[in-house]
Amino acid sequence: MRALTVRPRVADSARLDDVPVPDAGSVLVRGLAVGICGTDREIVDGDYGQAPPGEDRLVLGHEALGRVERVDGGGGVHVGDLVVPMVRHPDPVPCANCAAGEWDMCRNGQYTEHGILRRHGFAADYYRLEAERLVRVPHSLGMLAVLIEPASIVAKAWEHIERIGARALWKPRTALVTGAGPIGLLAALLGRQRGLAVHVFDRDPTGIKPELVRALGAEYHVGELMDVSDGADVIVECTGASAVIWDVLSRSARSGIVCLTGVSHGGQRMSVDVAQLNRTIVLENDVVFGTVNANRRHHEAAVDALCRADASWLARMITRRVPLAEWRAALRDEPDDVKVVLDLEA
Amino acid sequence: MRALTVRPRVADSARLDDVPVPDAGSVLVRGLAVGICGTDREIVDGDYGQAPPGEDRLVLGHEALGRVERVDGGGGVHVGDLVVPMVRHPDPVPCANCAAGEWDMCRNGQYTEHGILRRHGFAADYYRLEAERLVRVPHSLGMLAVLIEPASIVAKAWEHIERIGARALWKPRTALVTGAGPIGLLAALLGRQRGLAVHVFDRDPTGIKPELVRALGAEYHVGELMDVSDGADVIVECTGASAVIWDVLSRSARSGIVCLTGVSHGGQRMSVDVAQLNRTIVLENDVVFGTVNANRRHHEAAVDALCRADASWLARMITRRVPLAEWRAALRDEPDDVKVVLDLEA
Repeated sequence: MRALTVRPRVADSARLDDVPVPDAGSVLVRGLAVGICGTDREIVDGDYGQAPPGEDRLVLGHEALGRVERVDGGGGVHVGDLVVPMVRHPDPVPCANCAAGEWDMCRNGQYTEHGILRRHGFAADYYRLEAERLVRVPHSLGMLAVLIEPASIVAKAWEHIERIGARALWKPRTALVTGAGPIGLLAALLGRQRGLAVHVFDRDPTGIKPELVRALGAEYHVGELMDVSDGADVIVECTGASAVIWDVLSRSARSGIVCLTGVSHGGQRMSVDVAQLNRTIVLENDVVFGTVNANRRHHEAAVDALCRADASWLARMITRRVPLAEWRAALRDEPDDVKVVLDLEA
Repeated sequence: MRALTVRPRVADSARLDDVPVPDAGSVLVRGLAVGICGTDREIVDGDYGQAPPGEDRLVLGHEALGRVERVDGGGGVHVGDLVVPMVRHPDPVPCANCAAGEWDMCRNGQYTEHGILRRHGFAADYYRLEAERLVRVPHSLGMLAVLIEPASIVAKAWEHIERIGARALWKPRTALVTGAGPIGLLAALLGRQRGLAVHVFDRDPTGIKPELVRALGAEYHVGELMDVSDGADVIVECTGASAVIWDVLSRSARSGIVCLTGVSHGGQRMSVDVAQLNRTIVLENDVVFGTVNANRRHHEAAVDALCRADASWLARMITRRVPLAEWRAALRDEPDDVKVVLDLEA
């Protein structure tokens, strides 16, 4: 079968390989689609990722949609089901959080991640998993279910925003989202589904992004953050850009919550007033938190959120579908891209 | 009656005045003691504070203990009760949080604070308040109850740590406290009362602080934070010093919580890698939050915490008692001070 592989930590080592269909795992899944995200590009650039123990190469792909082809044993999935595999596996010697099904909050860092850390990904014709690692998806979502993995990240972000907010009386009205990529757009969608006034801050009003933001009933802004962030109760930071990150840290309303979701790259220093930021955070009871990955609860919340969304809006988020054979084009960043998807059946 | 007053925003304007006993407020309280903290020194230095509307001078003092002298009307306090007045008043046109009794989380910033912002403080022979602004204190605490106000700050900090922690499975084991002043020591006390292994980081091992830390069963450290902060689940930052603040932001364990309590002064810039901090916070699901002030629930938790503590340990925290007439000595920072208290009856 075909699999898009990379030699982790070696730049531009990606290639389409012919590899055997895996034999471990009781559910055989036919790959249908894989979304491409910043982490994939980081791995292809040689900056991140680890192959499985004893192997040189890693199958890429973690935003996946597949169809169950065969089930050896039980476990709640059936042939023909549409499924989304969950990315992170708990540590085999689980920490308390992994043991409780909260592998997204793993406390010992010994987890593995499909397509990222020590486990093959899903940019392949087939893969095998245990049923407990799969999330069943309504057929009504169809190919749009390839957005469930990024939506699960955002569903976790909103769950944590709400749980942290509930440390005191919490009645948010406004949310600011920085960045109008897939995570930013989905964060805006889930903010609107919660009835909040949502502002999306972006730097480059090209392509379909302004239109997608406005179609949600949210406001699209280009320019300085200070013009649009007067007292947002919630800020979801999705750019990973230092200047934007520093800017949002002090820009929430009193008792506001800043949720960081962007996996940025260190290495550049900037000159900032740490004491002034501390003073603002203390005197305003502000919160800043980071979030990564998602557990089953968040995947189910993502399914709900996407089912409630306008399907044509979701479809417009997928700006390019690229056959697996043309994977180089999928990995190339084009100016008007929102979400690029590898089509494994084309 | 005597009152220690200051002209806010004018350095070194503090003086002992002879002023009339106030006539508004149904409970007349005889002042017994007032603790001095960094905010008082900031006000005396002319850097903070506001007098009540239409007045030039502000009565100082917000960490107070008093005895009810007369009650005009009901309200749950009686002559002879030991009482601690709460510092913050909700906005008269309350925000949702103020209306719910959570004035510590006031969202519109229109609150007032005794001895700090637009309301006279308690460094006076008498003051008057409504009963609802008073917290009754067991007589067994006696003069130690002057520690209730700072303990209420710390009780709120721990309440929020626990509520934020509960966004997922939360079983903390270790806490790191930076700074061994009164807030740091009380944070260590409440951490130990929760059964955590507590490390206190300090820069200057003089006076009684190392001994007070060790008497709690906590570890006292001097030196680089990196030597002692290997994966603290909770970090309570009590120094307000830029370098320490920046250092702690990335030093919690995975899913760790950094609680900022120090009211620092801005104005100095430092060169830092914001993107690297963001990456750590995101990939580790870390939380950073600030906390200020306390509502009635936190004052009651503070009473409980102090009643459970070793009274002789609490008594040793009060390193100097200074008669009101010698207020200049109380405002002077001496090397071995922990908590300095103005004695209003001496």
